[in-house]
Order: sequence, then structure tokens, then C-alpha cells
Amino acid sequence: MKGNAMFEYELIKECPHTHARLGKLHTPHGVIETPIFMPVGTQATVKAMTPRDLHEIKAQIILSNTYHLFLRPGHELIRRAGGLHAFMGWDGPILTDSGGFQVFSLGDLRRIEEEGVHFRSHLDGSRRFISPETAMEIQEALGSDIAMAFDVCTAYPAEKDEVKDALKRTSRWLKRCAEAHTRPDQALFGIVQGGLFKDLREESVAATLETDLPGYAIGGLSVGEPKPLMYEMLDHVMPMMPGGKPRYLMGVGSPDCLIEGAMRGVDMFDCVLPTRIARNGTALTSRGTVVVRNAGYAEDFSPLDPACGCYTCTHFTRGYLRHLVKAGEILASMLITYHNLYFLLGLMEKMRNAILEENLPKFAGDFMSSYGIPLYDGE
Amino acid sequence: MKGNAMFEYELIKECPHTHARLGKLHTPHGVIETPIFMPVGTQATVKAMTPRDLHEIKAQIILSNTYHLFLRPGHELIRRAGGLHAFMGWDGPILTDSGGFQVFSLGDLRRIEEEGVHFRSHLDGSRRFISPETAMEIQEALGSDIAMAFDVCTAYPAEKDEVKDALKRTSRWLKRCAEAHTRPDQALFGIVQGGLFKDLREESVAATLETDLPGYAIGGLSVGEPKPLMYEMLDHVMPMMPGGKPRYLMGVGSPDCLIEGAMRGVDMFDCVLPTRIARNGTALTSRGTVVVRNAGYAEDFSPLDPACGCYTCTHFTRGYLRHLVKAGEILASMLITYHNLYFLLGLMEKMRNAILEENLPKFAGDFMSSYGIPLYDGE
Repeated sequence: MKGNAMFEYELIKECPHTHARLGKLHTPHGVIETPIFMPVGTQATVKAMTPRDLHEIKAQIILSNTYHLFLRPGHELIRRAGGLHAFMGWDGPILTDSGGFQVFSLGDLRRIEEEGVHFRSHLDGSRRFISPETAMEIQEALGSDIAMAFDVCTAYPAEKDEVKDALKRTSRWLKRCAEAHTRPDQALFGIVQGGLFKDLREESVAATLETDLPGYAIGGLSVGEPKPLMYEMLDHVMPMMPGGKPRYLMGVGSPDCLIEGAMRGVDMFDCVLPTRIARNGTALTSRGTVVVRNAGYAEDFSPLDPACGCYTCTHFTRGYLRHLVKAGEILASMLITYHNLYFLLGLMEKMRNAILEENLPKFAGDFMSSYGIPLYDGE
Repeated sequence: MKGNAMFEYELIKECPHTHARLGKLHTPHGVIETPIFMPVGTQATVKAMTPRDLHEIKAQIILSNTYHLFLRPGHELIRRAGGLHAFMGWDGPILTDSGGFQVFSLGDLRRIEEEGVHFRSHLDGSRRFISPETAMEIQEALGSDIAMAFDVCTAYPAEKDEVKDALKRTSRWLKRCAEAHTRPDQALFGIVQGGLFKDLREESVAATLETDLPGYAIGGLSVGEPKPLMYEMLDHVMPMMPGGKPRYLMGVGSPDCLIEGAMRGVDMFDCVLPTRIARNGTALTSRGTVVVRNAGYAEDFSPLDPACGCYTCTHFTRGYLRHLVKAGEILASMLITYHNLYFLLGLMEKMRNAILEENLPKFAGDFMSSYGIPLYDGE
């Protein structure tokens, strides 16, 4: 999986004003235009969306999760179903997270050792184990286009020693992942850790790049730290990343962070935010978030976002959506999820066009002004 | 609303073998081909279905509920939204139930008087009142194509005196409904009661037909009695119903009951069954019900119903659907609801074709044989 032409990254254009770049990433299930947002389908479904909904909103790649699918329904079952694409009826590219973040998040239910992570299933309490090797085995059974290395995360805030230990183990585990990984039709991405310590990030970048891979991710950000700290860390780290490979900022997905991240050179993003807040009745719009549940929308017979052309916004009103949310109707989750993903994917498409047309700063400034959060200016 | 040409019933063909009939019912929002099944959208949404999903499965008319919409979001709000069609984004015909059955079902929370029914909202315990006149007012605000008379139901089993009182009050209330009803673009249907007493059914039919209306319903069946009792009651009642008007059997929707009902001359049906069992992980198929949750389907990579051409059956397997059900995913409800409604609407279409081709008994026998419940032969 080293330098695999099947996963070529084409740099189409660099933004003359920022570190943003327009590119294409080739995968066995199609070409991804970057910068891109990847909707999250943790349990082999992007919640409340059918695969044809995903195609309709022009989702180019979706994300699924090793930890969840390992526990239920089990990767061997999915292998027998013909892999994750066949199992879930999605024929586009899929990236699978390695489960590192999920087992880390189990807290007292897990024990991290050099060999791997022992943990108890959040479903039935059964004892389970994932190592770099098993994370590769599971992801190869799933057959995702992009597999993530099994890494060690740290929380925010964390002591420097702890962060250093985690990144060193992550580096050792990356070598084991690369050693164990065999599928030529699956890309392995390494993950840079190092928390909010610039020197540790440098150390992690250097160690990660020792393994030549088709792409690299930035982990351990967007874990609770103030956004300016994340932006500063990206300012420091991104210039060290190789220009010829895609760069994936894990777990980031608010509109402002997508813009700030892309302007710093990030090519790929994922986050549960748009789908999760949708199920809670909150919409992302060009004028900021709309908490549909609020009583003030009861008789608002305008669309969620008058500037939006999605199925939800062209057919339903805020008042109707509020009724569905209040009544606990599944259709509320369906329609708001559809809109939120359409909105974020549309934002990424507009950013790609802005890079092509060399007016990204103006686009970003206008968008953020309307959205209600100023662009970060370092202060 | 008496003898309104806007709601003409066209009798296309009578089955030469049974009492079934092929017809068309004209409404302001389109023509309905009968016999027809009406998906239920209690709270202004057919649960887990978008309006375009409903069009795709060829739903011709849907049902919504006066009681629920009166309480939430309120009929005046829906009136201000432009009526129920505009509010929920459904441009086809809508029938609204009057709320009679729902307030009756509140048990100790309601008190039925001659003037109307005093009850407490199941949502917030607030005191509410619906009378024949308010039921008309609410349904006129909703703007449904077909409004149902406000009736008095009885449970099964019920004493004859109680059933008799209920049908007599239902008859008095029907006159008040007809008096109060004003919208020329809305049909009012009367409801025949009488429980499982043939003489009371006769009395109710006679009293109901005193008011000339564009259609009539049979209420008080499918309330817990054995199916043969319902079939026998239909055998007795249906020949008394006028041939030039549509006949609606309320609350009936299992495949076997749809076939038995249509063969006895029923033109319209509704039931929450297909949508409710879908959300519990049960599918209706040509080979009987499939309880997708069962462990035996975990590695069954065949469709829910190999004979079905719906989106769910052509794209997803039982094993995947079981995974979604077990994982509590919304997509499970979406895909199984879609299939169940497609299946029932397809069954009605096949029945209509069988009536046209004069082979309904053979079709019905073959279907029931495959489905696993024999046709009722009176024994």
C-alpha cells in the first residue's frame, strides 16, 4: 500500500491567497473532488438517509466506523455479504475510521497496552481487543477504499508527557499497521497526533511521514479545545505535510471550521455534527443555525434556508418542520438531515469553485459574515 | 355537500364472481382508483415517508387525523399555512378521520354527552371538546378532500343496548355534521355503526342513508373481533349500501382483510398496520410476514420479498435490514415502511386488474395460498 497509483492525488490548483488547494483523489469506487466533507455513516448507514439520497445531494465519499461494525454486525458477516459497499448498498468511495478514537473514548472500559487495546463492548459488556493488526484485518474485511491507521488519542486538556507517549505509540502502531496491511485496492492513511504542542506535532509529522502512504490525517484536534487553538495548530502543521498527498482533518464539520480548515490546506473533513444536530431539530443555514424546535418558528411558513435549493427547502416550511420535531416524527430527522448535508456539501462545492476562480477569501468572508461568525484573524 | 358532482363515483366494472367492484372516485386533488388502500399519516406525515416517496409508490390518497391535528399543531395554524395539503407538502387527495374513534379510545379521559365529547388531551392533559359541529369546523380548516362524520364508537365486545345507543347518537350527530358542513370542495362521508348485531347494522344503514352524501363508511369493525365475524357482518351490510357511492371500511389493512373486504364490495381501506409493524421491524411479503429482527435473517442476503420490485427489495438484503433494526437505525423504519406500503398498494392494483380481467377469485386464492392464510369460506 505504499505509493499506490490507484489512489493518486491530483493537485488541480493552489489558491493564490491562502493554503487552500483544489484536487482530485482517485479511489477504486470513484474520484473525490477536494476539499470535501464526508458524511458519517457510523453503523453502515448515514442516519436517516438512503444511498440514493446521498447520491442526490452529491455525496462523493462517506465514512463508516471500524469499532461499531466490528461489534455489530461483525466484520466477518460484512465480508460474507460482499463487503461494506454491497452490504449497505453504497457504490461510492468509503473511508473507515480505525476505531482508535472510539475505544479511547470508552474511558474506564478500556486498557491501552503496547500490543493493542482491551475493552468492553458498549453493547453487551463483552471483552474485546483491537490491535493495529486486527484494525487492519477488520478494515480489509469491510473493504473500504480508505482505511485509517489504529492510533492512540489524547483528550483535551492533556499533560505533555501523556501526549508524547501517545504519539510515540501511534508511530510504532503505524509501522505495524503498514506491515499488516495487504489489500492493494485499499489506501492506508497515517494519523498525525501531538495534541496542542507544536514540537510534538512536528515530531509526529516526521515520524508519520517515515511511512510512505497515499494520504495522511490530522487527529487529536476538535476534541474540546477552543477553535483558535485548532487553527493555530493547523497553521503550524499543514506546511509540513507533503503537497502531493491528501490531508484529512478528522472530526471537523462546522461550517466555520470547514472554511478555516480548507484555507489552511485541509482536503478532507468528516463530522457527525450535521446529522446529529439535525435529529435534535437544528438546521445549518446560510444565516447561521436555526433551532427549528423554537416556538418562534411555529407559524414561520418560509423555508429553513431561503437560499437553499434542496428538497427540504423547496417543499417544506419551518412551521411544518417544527411540527414534525415537536411530534417526534421520523420525517423531521429525514428532512433536516437531508438539508444539513446538502448545505455542507454545497458549501464545499462553492469553496472548490472559489479556489478555481481565485476568490476564496472574498467567498469565505461573505459566507462567514452571513453565517454570523467572523473569519479568524489571529486575535 | 349533498350529491356533489365534484366527488362523482364512477363504477367501471363489477366482478362477475364476487361483490367486488372497480371504480373511480373524483376529488378536487385527483382521481382515486378503487378498491384502494390509504396510507395513514396521523400527524400530517405518513411516518418515515416523504411525499415524493408516497408518489413513487403510487399512493393515490392518504389519511390524516382530526384529533391529532386539532391538538397539535392546531387546525387554525394549519388553516393559516394554507390547509393541510400545503402544510405537509402533499398535493394528492386527503381523507381526514373525524376524531370520533380517537376520543372514544381515550377511555377514562373522555365523557360522551349528547352535545359532544369532553376529553383531556393525551399530550398535556388540557380540557378539550369536540362536537359534530367542531369536527366539521376542524376538518374544513384542514381542507381535506374527504371529511368523516363525527361518530360514537363501541368496543368489542359490547352490550347490545350500548351499541344501539351509540348508533342512534351517531345518526343524530350525522345530521348535525351535514347541517354544519359547508365546504363544497370537501366531501362528507357518513359512518355506519351497529357493532356485530345484524339488526343494528340494518338500522344504522337505514338511518345513515337518510342523509344523502357522496360516500359512506363502515365503522366499528376490526376492533378486536375475530375476522370471520367481520366478514359475516360485511356479507350482511354491504348489499344494503348504495351501489353508486364509494364504501369505506375503516381501520382495515392486513393483506387478507383487504382481499376479503374488496371481494365483499369495499372500495376504500385504511390502517396503521403496514407502517406500524414496519417500525417494529416486520415486513409484509408475498410469502407472509417477515420478522426481520429474527436472528435467522442475520446472514440472509436475499431481498425482503424476492417477488417485489420496490426500492428496498431491489437494493437491500434482509441481513442489512436486520442490522439496521438491531442497531436502532432510522433507515430501518424508512426502508421497511416503504416496502410495506409499496406491497399493499401493489396488492390493491393487482386486485383492480383482476377485477378488470374477471379473474379475481383465482388471483385472491393464489395470493392467499402464497401468503399463508386461506380465503375465508364461511366455516
